[in-house]
Amino acid sequence: MILTSKGFDSEKTVEYGNKFLTGNGRIGYRGTLDEMTREHCVGVNIAGLYDGVAGKWRETVNAFNPFYLRLYVNGKQLTAWCDSVIDHTQSLDIGCGVFERKTVFDVGGGKLELVSKRFCSMANRKVLASRLTLRCETNINAELVAGIDTDIWELNGPHFANVSKESKDNVLFAHGITQENGTAVDVVCEFSRLPDKVADDFAHFAVHLEAGQVYVLDRIAQVLIGGEQSLFDLNFDNEYTKNVDKWRELWHKSDVELAGEGIEQAQFALRYSIYQLLILAPERDCSIAARGLSGQTYKGAVFWDTEMFLLPFYIKTDPNVAKRLVEYRIRTLNGALAKAQSYGYKGAFYAWESQDGIDACSDFNVTDVFTHRPVRTYFKDKQIHISADIALAIIRYFEQTGDEQLLLCGGLETLLQIGLFYYGYSYFNHIKKRYELLDVLGPDEYHERVNNNAYTNYMAYHCVKRTTELCDILSGKYPDEINAVLDSFGPNFCDTLRNWADKLYLPKCNENGVMEQFDGYFKLEDATVEDVRGRLVNPREYWGGTTGVATATRVIKQADVVMLAVTLPQYFSTEQIEANYKFYMPYTEHGSSLSFCAYALAACKSGHSEDAWKWFLQSAEIDLAGGGKQWAGDVYIGGTHPAASGGAWMVATQGFTQCRPTFLHKVKVHGYDN
Amino acid sequence: MILTSKGFDSEKTVEYGNKFLTGNGRIGYRGTLDEMTREHCVGVNIAGLYDGVAGKWRETVNAFNPFYLRLYVNGKQLTAWCDSVIDHTQSLDIGCGVFERKTVFDVGGGKLELVSKRFCSMANRKVLASRLTLRCETNINAELVAGIDTDIWELNGPHFANVSKESKDNVLFAHGITQENGTAVDVVCEFSRLPDKVADDFAHFAVHLEAGQVYVLDRIAQVLIGGEQSLFDLNFDNEYTKNVDKWRELWHKSDVELAGEGIEQAQFALRYSIYQLLILAPERDCSIAARGLSGQTYKGAVFWDTEMFLLPFYIKTDPNVAKRLVEYRIRTLNGALAKAQSYGYKGAFYAWESQDGIDACSDFNVTDVFTHRPVRTYFKDKQIHISADIALAIIRYFEQTGDEQLLLCGGLETLLQIGLFYYGYSYFNHIKKRYELLDVLGPDEYHERVNNNAYTNYMAYHCVKRTTELCDILSGKYPDEINAVLDSFGPNFCDTLRNWADKLYLPKCNENGVMEQFDGYFKLEDATVEDVRGRLVNPREYWGGTTGVATATRVIKQADVVMLAVTLPQYFSTEQIEANYKFYMPYTEHGSSLSFCAYALAACKSGHSEDAWKWFLQSAEIDLAGGGKQWAGDVYIGGTHPAASGGAWMVATQGFTQCRPTFLHKVKVHGYDN
Repeated sequence: MILTSKGFDSEKTVEYGNKFLTGNGRIGYRGTLDEMTREHCVGVNIAGLYDGVAGKWRETVNAFNPFYLRLYVNGKQLTAWCDSVIDHTQSLDIGCGVFERKTVFDVGGGKLELVSKRFCSMANRKVLASRLTLRCETNINAELVAGIDTDIWELNGPHFANVSKESKDNVLFAHGITQENGTAVDVVCEFSRLPDKVADDFAHFAVHLEAGQVYVLDRIAQVLIGGEQSLFDLNFDNEYTKNVDKWRELWHKSDVELAGEGIEQAQFALRYSIYQLLILAPERDCSIAARGLSGQTYKGAVFWDTEMFLLPFYIKTDPNVAKRLVEYRIRTLNGALAKAQSYGYKGAFYAWESQDGIDACSDFNVTDVFTHRPVRTYFKDKQIHISADIALAIIRYFEQTGDEQLLLCGGLETLLQIGLFYYGYSYFNHIKKRYELLDVLGPDEYHERVNNNAYTNYMAYHCVKRTTELCDILSGKYPDEINAVLDSFGPNFCDTLRNWADKLYLPKCNENGVMEQFDGYFKLEDATVEDVRGRLVNPREYWGGTTGVATATRVIKQADVVMLAVTLPQYFSTEQIEANYKFYMPYTEHGSSLSFCAYALAACKSGHSEDAWKWFLQSAEIDLAGGGKQWAGDVYIGGTHPAASGGAWMVATQGFTQCRPTFLHKVKVHGYDN
Repeated sequence: MILTSKGFDSEKTVEYGNKFLTGNGRIGYRGTLDEMTREHCVGVNIAGLYDGVAGKWRETVNAFNPFYLRLYVNGKQLTAWCDSVIDHTQSLDIGCGVFERKTVFDVGGGKLELVSKRFCSMANRKVLASRLTLRCETNINAELVAGIDTDIWELNGPHFANVSKESKDNVLFAHGITQENGTAVDVVCEFSRLPDKVADDFAHFAVHLEAGQVYVLDRIAQVLIGGEQSLFDLNFDNEYTKNVDKWRELWHKSDVELAGEGIEQAQFALRYSIYQLLILAPERDCSIAARGLSGQTYKGAVFWDTEMFLLPFYIKTDPNVAKRLVEYRIRTLNGALAKAQSYGYKGAFYAWESQDGIDACSDFNVTDVFTHRPVRTYFKDKQIHISADIALAIIRYFEQTGDEQLLLCGGLETLLQIGLFYYGYSYFNHIKKRYELLDVLGPDEYHERVNNNAYTNYMAYHCVKRTTELCDILSGKYPDEINAVLDSFGPNFCDTLRNWADKLYLPKCNENGVMEQFDGYFKLEDATVEDVRGRLVNPREYWGGTTGVATATRVIKQADVVMLAVTLPQYFSTEQIEANYKFYMPYTEHGSSLSFCAYALAACKSGHSEDAWKWFLQSAEIDLAGGGKQWAGDVYIGGTHPAASGGAWMVATQGFTQCRPTFLHKVKVHGYDN
């Protein structure tokens, strides 16, 4: 289970930073090389630690890089891109999360081999470990300069004020304090050798290497947040073993084994997806960012991706992690209440881009390519399905784990506050005699401010209805606790919600089995994705908004009704799932990496397993292929795509277990209850 | 009362075509010169006759031009722009609607004077009359070539199929049939002299002019629509006298006399405005287009301008005309019912751009200047205040004339259908316990799809409430008739409407006396008109839509809350009118000619009479000054501004009668009941 890349291509530095990412749920270390710096987008991303600098977007913090290193031979620095390079390989062992690079240099008279491996320990989450090995065909004098690089890559920094560095014997320290909240971040790096000297906070090692001899330098780093204590008596070999053991455990309960003909590449892509999910599982009270731990893209904020595309994996493989993710939303209920209040609504309106419950989403998320002016977008204030997505996560978690305590400790209150939000957001029409959810964005963000988006209405209906049922069930067992929760909502609140749900408008599939994405969608211009792409004047134009090419057409950014059909299939017949799958396909741009897996699942559910396989591969291989957009105008939006990884897992475990292509003989799904 | 312009400036041809417009409510003849053609935007616009050519906008039809004429001396054509011109003057007598041009040519050895006057007869509306006079200081041989120019200026033509021309003795005929409905339009032109020859359908007159002698050629034209009979035994002098007499009558009941110091120019501008209103008063069953009879701009369609800005003048001066305008809306109720139905609403949703009740408004009213793609706009589907504007017109007409028959013959049914529309369009929020009007455009079109626009909500409230009161009043006098009308709406419909109005959300003025234009307006960026103008990348950019410079700011196109405050002042204290006037002023672009008069009235109502005077002049002088936009991108949007004329009259008669600047001593308002 090793991903390997031969040769060095400077064009791929950013892409490989994502592709060869290592992590342990607390820290993500990008797949860059020892000698790289901020210019190469080296990143040691910290999960759930946010900082905001005045006038810029708030985002997760990158720690100082403990593994920066320069190699000199005869006074000349050797890098992967210098002209002495004979051979370069880098690899990632997804079985144990170990990154390795091997570079061979011509040092005149012989070859010098540099091997550097590193990992973020799954056993001790504070710990990052690195082993550097040098071997040469000839005698050489070399110098290694290693240290903690505090001149780090940041999108909206600098996040650290008053950076200070120290050294003592074979240990270097770097200390910083985040600007907004004053959180201390300490990076410690201990060398396996005593430096010959320390200058400018960097350790210098003189290396006298005899032909054939091996020189090893180990580094054990720790990233300490908010004054955490550091660990002692660590060494590379011990940490390596513990890490490998921990990974073996993880794979045992997380693997999905495929058997069949010609599916090796797909098997690897699926396991690579699972690897991505494993390195993101948080070890403390936070959730998972949309670009995982690959950087600060999208402000390190938590989107619906977590609940809709990642949670199923964790419920199956590690319910404690799943609980942590769900608890994150329960814990940030106040943020959702405050957001609702700020718009004049009641109840819980969750952040579209959550940073500890605060909505990091801007009202101006797009820059117009023609005028370079910010464009008013509605992701934050109108994409109300986010609250239902979170409700569904709580409900699913409970249904699959039976964890009543979570409902009693805030879960049910959260569900009721979400119900209150939809009740208050909705309007009743006295002519049509129904509640409607007006002025929303569905998953397809190209059509702004639509009425009665099918996905939104059904999700709200399902979750509110289920909430009232859970109230009834739990009231019998825990009458006092449940009444205490219900009391704060006023009398008969459950009945109010039930009545509301029964009168909420739920669009029905038409005579062709197709459900209209929102009121009036069918009346939009019947143009395909290729049609509207041909109308672009500038390739970077935003497709939505009033002037976008998709706006007045049926072209959608991503699965919307199809997403609904695979999320809540109980409201669709098999024929209707197929009808929607076929109808919406030519209109779907898949401009979001969240889209492929929905199509894959819909294909499975409607018997098109070979098509499903293609969609599945698009989801599973997205980070391997280096797909996805890296830049939106001048803004870096690159990184890994955890939702696509989670989606691939969902397709394999929920789709191909039901409906397999002929060449796929068996799917064995591991889980925590193996 | 004569408007005069000396010299000829080819740059001003289009502007003068508007400024020197003549008309009689049936025909508008642009202020162009005899020798001008389609290139100079000669136009003989017919009121209320529409035609649509496949793939183009439907619009009013321009008739063939009966008064085309070329003058040759020594084989050379003399025009106002040829190099023989010594002097050129053109004038418009607004006292009797007579246009005159006088051009003096140097014909070698002496001056040749050409005088041409013409008018559209107010006495015989089919008739247009022209008198041409030539006088020379020396003997000359000249030739006049005169005829009906069928090669006419059209924005979205050609509207006539199978154009044919004929001649008989001293009469020329041109005949055309509109493409869409096959309506015949016949133009007849009778000369006072027998032509020397007729060639290519043009009459040729050889003119042997002795020095000092006068040569006169009269032309009496008729524009006959749909096979109307032509009149006989007409001559210029008789028609001229009858026209002048008729105009004297009109002025007697329509004049507004100002007395004061230094107000002569303003007095003229006000009378010029009244002149514009007089030439638009329809003589048959149609209403008034937004650009009057000055051309085909805005498709010759009827906007809210008529009800809100023009109707008050006609109610005061000529109730029969007012009734015709109101009846137009009653007669086109079916169109409003059909429009509502097409969107899934009940009741009467009137056309934003009415052509016989059909909505001529496009869903794509703007072209993006950067991509040249059409932009989805919401004037047609969201500017729902149009129905209330029309309801208010019916109510005002009744209140000021006491004409119960109009209410019994469709007026009340129209009001009830409008009430039903708002009832069905609105939504009830169970948390806020109120009806709201969501997703609308107010008069300020730069902010699309807003909730609870104050103007819209109050107008709907007022009209629906007043409708129920009228029902009650009339029920006592005409129980059978009223019950018959009410029956079709189901039981207790009046109570339903009353209850609805009582629960409709009406925003209140805040502690500073300011009413929020729509939900969330106060949260928009506090930028002024000049601020946002400075952000334009292209001067022709549309300010609204998602990418427009005004969208995310408080900058508005035109008076909105201020329009409400002067339309329904009973809902505001004087202090509140002043507060809104002052608050919204820096944010108002006055991008519509409808805006100045609202500010003038608000200034009067809050005691700022000198400011009101300035706003008044901007409204009254708009067509004199040649203000207003002529082009929107490549689309001609020029023409006269009747609403500004009507607004100027409203300011003089409703504003300055209450609150005068010190230099204005007296305002005497004429009316039909003088």
